Amino acid sequence: MLCNILGQFKPDTIVHLAEQPSAPYSQKDVLHACATQNNNVLGTLNLLWAMKKNAPEAHLIKLGTMGEYGTQEDTIPELDFKYHKEPGSFYHASKVHDSFNINLACRIWGLSCTDIMQGIVYGLNPVEKPDQLTRFDIDESFGTAINRFIASALSGVPMTVYGKGGQTRGFLPLIDSLQCLQIVMQNPAEKGEHRIINQFAQTYSIKDLAVMVKDVAKELSIDTTLGFIPNPRKEKEEHEYEVVHKWLEDHGYVPTTDMRKVIKDTLLKLYPYRERIIKTIIRPNITWA
Amino acid sequence: MLCNILGQFKPDTIVHLAEQPSAPYSQKDVLHACATQNNNVLGTLNLLWAMKKNAPEAHLIKLGTMGEYGTQEDTIPELDFKYHKEPGSFYHASKVHDSFNINLACRIWGLSCTDIMQGIVYGLNPVEKPDQLTRFDIDESFGTAINRFIASALSGVPMTVYGKGGQTRGFLPLIDSLQCLQIVMQNPAEKGEHRIINQFAQTYSIKDLAVMVKDVAKELSIDTTLGFIPNPRKEKEEHEYEVVHKWLEDHGYVPTTDMRKVIKDTLLKLYPYRERIIKTIIRPNITWA
Repeated sequence: MLCNILGQFKPDTIVHLAEQPSAPYSQKDVLHACATQNNNVLGTLNLLWAMKKNAPEAHLIKLGTMGEYGTQEDTIPELDFKYHKEPGSFYHASKVHDSFNINLACRIWGLSCTDIMQGIVYGLNPVEKPDQLTRFDIDESFGTAINRFIASALSGVPMTVYGKGGQTRGFLPLIDSLQCLQIVMQNPAEKGEHRIINQFAQTYSIKDLAVMVKDVAKELSIDTTLGFIPNPRKEKEEHEYEVVHKWLEDHGYVPTTDMRKVIKDTLLKLYPYRERIIKTIIRPNITWA
Repeated sequence: MLCNILGQFKPDTIVHLAEQPSAPYSQKDVLHACATQNNNVLGTLNLLWAMKKNAPEAHLIKLGTMGEYGTQEDTIPELDFKYHKEPGSFYHASKVHDSFNINLACRIWGLSCTDIMQGIVYGLNPVEKPDQLTRFDIDESFGTAINRFIASALSGVPMTVYGKGGQTRGFLPLIDSLQCLQIVMQNPAEKGEHRIINQFAQTYSIKDLAVMVKDVAKELSIDTTLGFIPNPRKEKEEHEYEVVHKWLEDHGYVPTTDMRKVIKDTLLKLYPYRERIIKTIIRPNITWA
């Protein structure tokens, strides 16, 4: 979906999904922090200059993250770049830097961009055949909490809830993420516009997720245990989390599934491969300290 | 003044003046933009990790820029990191990125930092002997407007006022900048504090400066002409500019000189070297377009 804009081809839409680093990866040490910011910030900066030269009329769809805001006491708005950002890792900070570079490019060059503050995506690729399944990360760096709880359930390791588990975030099924991107493509930003939208379906706390995985596993006769471990991150463990996320709904987004269904589907699809799970990588080692 | 923190030595204060790039330099092309952000952002990021490891109790004094805010309609506050930033170049954006990385390091590691939003510094090094004089940049990238107007006056080239000349900024004599840094050193930020202060003495518009150089030159019997040229930058050319800058005054800053005196002193000190001025580098070539 990422169009080649380095040649003479002038695309209408550029979807920029680049980056592999993650929050824990960026907190590991100075080299991982620098690699993360180098990759994301200079990658996006290169893309902006390439657009200016080759596709100034294109609509850039950039995947940022709800983590640019962090957790704040006030309601987090939509369509308002002036709202304060409080990233919780150098990875999330790199996305804030991207947003400031994009904002500048829209102001001085008239580029147009939808900068998507995306929640945490969950669920497998919706494929039919087992040989079409893609990677399923369960380690502390690239595995999100849901994946990790599912891996715990399937391998008999206690689920690692960090701290009190009251950390609340926005979540979105993978299949709906693609629906949302399509809606954004069909409704491009204006010339010179840097449009900030918040993309997720529902909010849950980490403890909500663990309990839901436990419940769904029980329905499938899989026994699980919740384990509360010291939080390796520096973050609020109990907090308000109110976020406006109306733009996508107003433009036609209809959730197609929910977390309980996706958890059940994932547990069933991965069950045949449960022996492959490396149990020792579930416990986290990287700390924010 | 930049302490070595890579060894075992644990300093009390770290003054981080790093960086050579400038706003026009960063707008030249993709390579200059990337070099600027690579140098500033990753340089500061390295310093933060080095502090965490070797000098977590030190007080970082970081030179940012008033350009992090850009020009805004509301009064720009002090001591408020939540206030919106609107940098006007990839150079100024790199300083915004630095501020977000510093803010994170103060929040999660408890580092302490005074992040100085400095105005434009002017004036020669206060040295006694001619052989102690340092560089005096007059090109479009590294020469600030005052230096460039003085070079115009000394070489008989019309002063290049960009656009309407109503662009207003904060200014500070070099000698006062050192006084201010000393005050900041003597009043360190608290542990975990990311303190934002605005450092400049007075605001002037670009046209004010050109007229002042013209007037002072006239007193010295040097004839000059003002030239208004198309603005190579994308920026507001007539705007409000209200900025709170009380912290330094409240902590003892007393301006020791003013711009008119410094312009006169600079014209007189550079007069013997006026033949060295390369007239062709005064007209700008880099555009924001």
